[in-house]
Amino acid sequence: MAPCLAPASRIGILGGGQLGRMLARAAARLGFDCVVFDPDQDCPAGRSAAQTVTAAYEDLDAVARFAQSVDAVTYEFENVPAATAQIAAAHAPLRPGVKALGVAQDRLTEKTFLNRNGAETAAFCAVQTGDDLTEALGELGLPAVLKTRRFGYDGKGQAVIRDKSEAAAALAVMNGQPAILEAFVDFARELSIIAARSADGAVQIYPLAENRHADGLLRESLAPAHIDPCVQEAAEVMVTGVLNALEYVGVIAMELFALGHGALLANEIAPRVHNTGHWTQDACAVCQFEQHIRAVAGWPLGDPAPHHAAHMVNLIGEDVDDWAQWLQIENAVLHLYGKRETRAGRKMGHVNVLSALSDR
Amino acid sequence: MAPCLAPASRIGILGGGQLGRMLARAAARLGFDCVVFDPDQDCPAGRSAAQTVTAAYEDLDAVARFAQSVDAVTYEFENVPAATAQIAAAHAPLRPGVKALGVAQDRLTEKTFLNRNGAETAAFCAVQTGDDLTEALGELGLPAVLKTRRFGYDGKGQAVIRDKSEAAAALAVMNGQPAILEAFVDFARELSIIAARSADGAVQIYPLAENRHADGLLRESLAPAHIDPCVQEAAEVMVTGVLNALEYVGVIAMELFALGHGALLANEIAPRVHNTGHWTQDACAVCQFEQHIRAVAGWPLGDPAPHHAAHMVNLIGEDVDDWAQWLQIENAVLHLYGKRETRAGRKMGHVNVLSALSDR
Repeated sequence: MAPCLAPASRIGILGGGQLGRMLARAAARLGFDCVVFDPDQDCPAGRSAAQTVTAAYEDLDAVARFAQSVDAVTYEFENVPAATAQIAAAHAPLRPGVKALGVAQDRLTEKTFLNRNGAETAAFCAVQTGDDLTEALGELGLPAVLKTRRFGYDGKGQAVIRDKSEAAAALAVMNGQPAILEAFVDFARELSIIAARSADGAVQIYPLAENRHADGLLRESLAPAHIDPCVQEAAEVMVTGVLNALEYVGVIAMELFALGHGALLANEIAPRVHNTGHWTQDACAVCQFEQHIRAVAGWPLGDPAPHHAAHMVNLIGEDVDDWAQWLQIENAVLHLYGKRETRAGRKMGHVNVLSALSDR
Repeated sequence: MAPCLAPASRIGILGGGQLGRMLARAAARLGFDCVVFDPDQDCPAGRSAAQTVTAAYEDLDAVARFAQSVDAVTYEFENVPAATAQIAAAHAPLRPGVKALGVAQDRLTEKTFLNRNGAETAAFCAVQTGDDLTEALGELGLPAVLKTRRFGYDGKGQAVIRDKSEAAAALAVMNGQPAILEAFVDFARELSIIAARSADGAVQIYPLAENRHADGLLRESLAPAHIDPCVQEAAEVMVTGVLNALEYVGVIAMELFALGHGALLANEIAPRVHNTGHWTQDACAVCQFEQHIRAVAGWPLGDPAPHHAAHMVNLIGEDVDDWAQWLQIENAVLHLYGKRETRAGRKMGHVNVLSALSDR
């Protein structure tokens, strides 16, 4: 049994973006000190933490010193290098662990893992060469989506193939990296489920959110999603199987496609707090950030039941210029990330607009 | 018109205790960087802020540099030395201002000011000598309460006089400091009202809280208080008069006594966020800390309407050892301050237990 952290203990966070900032805020409310590890000294999370360590993730000496200086380590992004995670785990409890990172970092490993643990996905094939791609297209049919196995996020490293003539161009986007071809899913809705598992194996699950993406970026979430209770149940079974198979500790996000007839396919998992769970910050007594910190600290999980419905709107790029208008809207809770520079496609903040659960 | 701060601006906070820590967290959610000024390098607020300045409040050079380095300055305690406040105000907008500090730091000035601005108080007399005290007791009757004019808080520097024979001992407690004798108020309930005024003069007011003190320390608040709407109205008139007379910018707290027949007497004001407003953190979309930061930033105020009722329980001294039990209670939101040492009478944290407004 891993230790339970006392209040005022130190929690290390690998990664200093907005997710790290919101984790640090939640941890501070529970009395913890956070130490943020990020290559950028001026990162958003470092500016609301007790301490910042500025070093490259590949600087394993720095990672070791960082992990030695704290009582537990977590991360805010799934592309933590394997060696970094291993060194951190050698010096402090790393939650979630190395196994979850390994699965989530490679789409082929991830989808194979999901299928073996009760979470059905779209059909897929590994693709390295043009010949592989031709064969995979023959098997999966058209349209299909070619994706790099590693380091893809927010729609990057992806190419849709609608016609065989587009195959070569799609392969070029992969830039020689190992890839995966996925059957195109004609989904009715994009859903996601946020769940947590504690160090002693207890699981708590939030209601499904319905999400809308554009240009590969999450634009908005509505939660709880308007769905049949049996869909919530099916998603809970899928995510619980994955949490237990990974012996997971912390918050996980699973993105799902709901097909027209109601069946669910798992798309991907993120071994961390997730943008589609931001609605919980203002609609639940215990939000995903607190839930994650509780798990990382070896504390019992909280009740994930929402007291409000929420419409979460991402402020991307120049959307953030509307901050003053959002302040005027009743029941809108504004979250800004403190980023110095507004860039197209950059997540700058979000808003949770609350409404009564009974209105839904 | 004072400037409106852009997101990612820097806000300076004089004082690094739990109120500063909660202000820093609220500011971080709105995208600000906080700089905390405190003599203690390891203060609670500094550990969730962008930067900490460690210096004595009397180090006016350090105060000047601190104020120059930020876009606005606020404070978390009312005993900021006058010279410190003046230096800060010379280099950055100080919100609330020097005037509010001057009024709140001296009970005689405060009560005189309150009475002149529509907030009736208990009868009082200035007391310096034994003769003053004899005369004042003759005027106000028994029992009465003798208090130091300055630097009293949480019941310190006070002595109740129930019999003339106790007068000398009470005066000794004052230790030669200027004092004030107040008529004893046989109140039915202790109430408080949290209100805010923006840089452009708009006022927003939270519902009254009912408070219970013991040994001079706040133990719990219930909000909204179960009171007649006309009592809320009377309190709003009182606090609005005070806010406007002070040309106040920020959150203020006014403690009130409700007499048996429903009339209100003002007890004191605190020119800052206040322990009796902590219930707003989890029961309102916009809590007192966000409201204060909005005002300090020159931003519009938010809607103070609660979406829940709350029972706020202070965790004082060893109360904090029950933290794990509070985690298990549904609708209880735990706040710990990250203080390293538990001491008798020290505020270590609080809990907000939420319930439906309609249950009240």
